[in-house]
Amino acid sequence: MELANLFPESILERPMLVVGHIRADGDAIGAQIALCRALNAKGFRAKLLVDKDIPHKFLPFIGDTPNEPATSFSYSGEAICAVDCAGKERLSPFFDQAIDVNIDHHNLNPKFATHNYVQTASSTCELLAELLLDARWPIDAVSANALYLGIVTDSGQFVHTETTAETHRIAATLVDLGAKPEAIHDVLYQHESLPTYKLLQRFLDSLQLFCDGSLCIGMLFLADFAETGTTHAATEDFVNYPRSIDGVAISAFIEETRDGTRVSMRARQPSARLDLIAKNFGGGGHPSAAGFASKFSPNDVVPVLVKALQRPIQNDF
Amino acid sequence: MELANLFPESILERPMLVVGHIRADGDAIGAQIALCRALNAKGFRAKLLVDKDIPHKFLPFIGDTPNEPATSFSYSGEAICAVDCAGKERLSPFFDQAIDVNIDHHNLNPKFATHNYVQTASSTCELLAELLLDARWPIDAVSANALYLGIVTDSGQFVHTETTAETHRIAATLVDLGAKPEAIHDVLYQHESLPTYKLLQRFLDSLQLFCDGSLCIGMLFLADFAETGTTHAATEDFVNYPRSIDGVAISAFIEETRDGTRVSMRARQPSARLDLIAKNFGGGGHPSAAGFASKFSPNDVVPVLVKALQRPIQNDF
Repeated sequence: MELANLFPESILERPMLVVGHIRADGDAIGAQIALCRALNAKGFRAKLLVDKDIPHKFLPFIGDTPNEPATSFSYSGEAICAVDCAGKERLSPFFDQAIDVNIDHHNLNPKFATHNYVQTASSTCELLAELLLDARWPIDAVSANALYLGIVTDSGQFVHTETTAETHRIAATLVDLGAKPEAIHDVLYQHESLPTYKLLQRFLDSLQLFCDGSLCIGMLFLADFAETGTTHAATEDFVNYPRSIDGVAISAFIEETRDGTRVSMRARQPSARLDLIAKNFGGGGHPSAAGFASKFSPNDVVPVLVKALQRPIQNDF
Repeated sequence: MELANLFPESILERPMLVVGHIRADGDAIGAQIALCRALNAKGFRAKLLVDKDIPHKFLPFIGDTPNEPATSFSYSGEAICAVDCAGKERLSPFFDQAIDVNIDHHNLNPKFATHNYVQTASSTCELLAELLLDARWPIDAVSANALYLGIVTDSGQFVHTETTAETHRIAATLVDLGAKPEAIHDVLYQHESLPTYKLLQRFLDSLQLFCDGSLCIGMLFLADFAETGTTHAATEDFVNYPRSIDGVAISAFIEETRDGTRVSMRARQPSARLDLIAKNFGGGGHPSAAGFASKFSPNDVVPVLVKALQRPIQNDF
């Protein structure tokens, strides 16, 4: 695939919006930044929209890239380029418009745009870097750093299954072009707080094993958040803890909310089909990462959840 | 540097022991495995010694590499090749013998062997991979995986300061040669235990801030290990928690041992020169990751440590 095919004249002649998915992560924001800057450097009008939910630690990577908060933006006929969006429903809700370009690495992406580039890779940033390098479009130091951020975060720091030799070759080129690995280190490892750790303590204390140690469930109550001075935003990585226990095939994290509970489930193997289980409870997600909301209290959800997860565990998926 | 200079005929004609440092980590064991296998493949007699403290999750990487437990081994004139040993005191205590070869990436390594190769790099495994590739010595799939393990773990998964474009180029070559990134993922993320998390809870509970929040110290006592049914091996990653707190420039982890304490320090910036501070206490390490042992109790070490670390913190390094 060449960039020229993704960006024909009909798109390039309009001002462009580069958008990522809701609750932006490092891969979405990294790809937005690099694509935007490359378009600008080639003389095209492009800016990125910054979702209000973006973790603050990613904001410094934007630098002087033209950008606008998604909340204050009103659409007026721009071309829309989506990066790292697995589906159209993952775009900010006001995008009822037709999408012009779609660059993504989620292999179930339904190719919702007029021009689509969907390939399996460690990250959308890996795909985009490859496209930019092939086309000899500019990657400046800010873009190189943003692309490195996306590759590092979405590849699980170079240990997810999709990490290939090519992933490393592109990372090497990005470092040559000015990416600073230690800047990513700072983003990943400098933004915790003591209150978050107090909450983590309570979460670790709540962990219980079921099904001969194949299922691990942890939970947090509204009182835990209130007493540690934290919010639900602090729990972003907590579900990784029960999942990491030797012998655990499925893990679940039950959070009490004002309306009942929110349940996040993770499996080692996609064959667990957690997406189908979540659907039974009115939720959704991926085969190995899914969730749902419930009106019941955490303690009431536990036995129901154990029962629902027993079948995939007993069948060894 | 060429391998032929490090391994002259006088060394190669003797059986060889490949040793790492005490409390072996992924970088030490990875380098031991790859060097041993390369020597064997070239027709030389070599085996690695496995320290009793090695985390069990690393053992599968050894595969069919000739090895012997350090505890049951008795020395009988073998050549000794040390990898990833910052100093001679980091070798298992029974090595009073002269050391023949020393391959290491700790830049304060005093070059204690007859033949030394000491270079700054992400990891000893990066250096060794480079040496083996340059010399066209064999790297089979087991070695490639072991070297990848060492690079991943010692580079902080490609975000430490020492991560260069060359680090990624070598990682790419190792993946080409059969390294499996997802095998490293399993090692890093599938071997925790509930007892380790109970210990982590206690550690998080012990965290204290000093120097206006720039220094964070946590500690664990022998009773914590006894009561949770864990050993010191469980604490491998704990020092990352205090280091990750927003505003913390230096973190320290103090473990009570039978002989006193063991102190691990981490800094955000290598300009903190923790290696020099550790040296003052009879220890060693890297500018941003160093440690030492002390005869004093954890509670007695805290004020001494706070005082020693105040200068780099006050000078903003």
